[in-house]
Amino acid sequence: MSRRRTVFFLSDGTGITAQMLGHSLLTQFEGIEFQQVTLPFIDSADKARDCLERIERESLRGDGQPIVFSTLVNNDVREVVRRANALFVDFFEAFIGPLEAGLGLKSTHTIGRSHSALDKQEYKQRIEAVNFAMAHDDGASHRDLAEADVILVGVSRSGKTPTSLYLALQFGVKAANYPLIPEDFARALLPEALRAFKSRLYGLTIAAERLHEIRRERRPGSQYADPGNCRYEVAQAEALMTREGIRWINSTAKSIEEIATTILRELKLERQIY
Amino acid sequence: MSRRRTVFFLSDGTGITAQMLGHSLLTQFEGIEFQQVTLPFIDSADKARDCLERIERESLRGDGQPIVFSTLVNNDVREVVRRANALFVDFFEAFIGPLEAGLGLKSTHTIGRSHSALDKQEYKQRIEAVNFAMAHDDGASHRDLAEADVILVGVSRSGKTPTSLYLALQFGVKAANYPLIPEDFARALLPEALRAFKSRLYGLTIAAERLHEIRRERRPGSQYADPGNCRYEVAQAEALMTREGIRWINSTAKSIEEIATTILRELKLERQIY
Repeated sequence: MSRRRTVFFLSDGTGITAQMLGHSLLTQFEGIEFQQVTLPFIDSADKARDCLERIERESLRGDGQPIVFSTLVNNDVREVVRRANALFVDFFEAFIGPLEAGLGLKSTHTIGRSHSALDKQEYKQRIEAVNFAMAHDDGASHRDLAEADVILVGVSRSGKTPTSLYLALQFGVKAANYPLIPEDFARALLPEALRAFKSRLYGLTIAAERLHEIRRERRPGSQYADPGNCRYEVAQAEALMTREGIRWINSTAKSIEEIATTILRELKLERQIY
Repeated sequence: MSRRRTVFFLSDGTGITAQMLGHSLLTQFEGIEFQQVTLPFIDSADKARDCLERIERESLRGDGQPIVFSTLVNNDVREVVRRANALFVDFFEAFIGPLEAGLGLKSTHTIGRSHSALDKQEYKQRIEAVNFAMAHDDGASHRDLAEADVILVGVSRSGKTPTSLYLALQFGVKAANYPLIPEDFARALLPEALRAFKSRLYGLTIAAERLHEIRRERRPGSQYADPGNCRYEVAQAEALMTREGIRWINSTAKSIEEIATTILRELKLERQIY
């Protein structure tokens, strides 16, 4: 049996939803190399025919039947693509029926509804959250810190910046981030600017060895990257956060999604955008 | 019939996949207000029982049967939650069987595989892309511009920053962004730093009225936000990009996802992370 499979993500929109669910299903199968191809914005019968050809060509390459993950909403478009010799995983068709029955409503079959910019309020919230995260990255500004939904603290390279940006882009949550530095450890106090917002602080920590690896790549041979210094900073930061009663999470083996989701849940923050 | 429904997103992971697909299905139904609740990290029978109670409570509130979107992988956990009086939309169960048959393989039923930090290489690529986007936001640095997969250009507030960050976080693509400013229009030339990388430039433009709205919120009454100035800058930027043969997209009515996906496709960039 072939150890390679070609996987298509088909959508009349961006294809991101199809990619995400398809990928999470594929992670359940080991030992197969999946060749992943995304075909977005398939919103006409013509484009559907191009996809059909593309999939058919693939199916003749002897790597076994291609897998097609589809979020196609339009029936005519779907009909064309379904003719392909492929394992067709149809997210829309599988669930829209049961949902129509359960809700006692017909679906509108409108395309391009998810991730659409139609909702101006949500869009604005999202952009403002991104601007906020950028303006308050790495303690850059104390202005409007009171507006932050969360202020991430931790040593340099503990994952604060990607987490702040993800919270803003994916959830529309206003996240500032503020570094904990040797001066803070010497003083054994939180940075002054943060003391007023303790309830909104959330800490990120990281295994000292991992921190050393990351810092070494940026500044080889530096005191900053020195293993002993990394151990010191991590220990001090964790002690400080514990003393101050700041909740924290170890980011070492976690994805940005896992960290961000955990923070939302623990601070009881609501996702602002969908 | 009730116009309100409570929707649960259940996952043994972050719940983001369940949210995304569930939301894209819900956008197909108009006139119903969906109360959305995410219950992530449901990885034990105990937690499953808490969910069960939570859903049951909801089902007694008279807003009709709750809807449960689940990406639960673990059978024992799923069994517990399925007892709830709810419309259960089970992404995993619906497709894992057909995939096992099609691939001739049993699924591993391992949880927490999507968005996991297990793949160190992918994780590194993602963080580096984020660092790159931050270091090259708004023309901040010309260093390593040659490493950029794409350099977004456009007038201030045309959507360059959120798009660059999204490309980095979601796709692991290195995106710089560089503003087009009145000085460039006066010279009728691209900023010097960009001329060497023309093939990697991609333009964002925006409707002048929308640009005016956005800029007015940031700097009310300024020349920067003046409607006439916004019209001038947009017209000049579009003329410059056309003269230089730079592809561009109008971001006015598009989501960040739509813009980012279009850029990947038009520059034939591969998604680097999943």
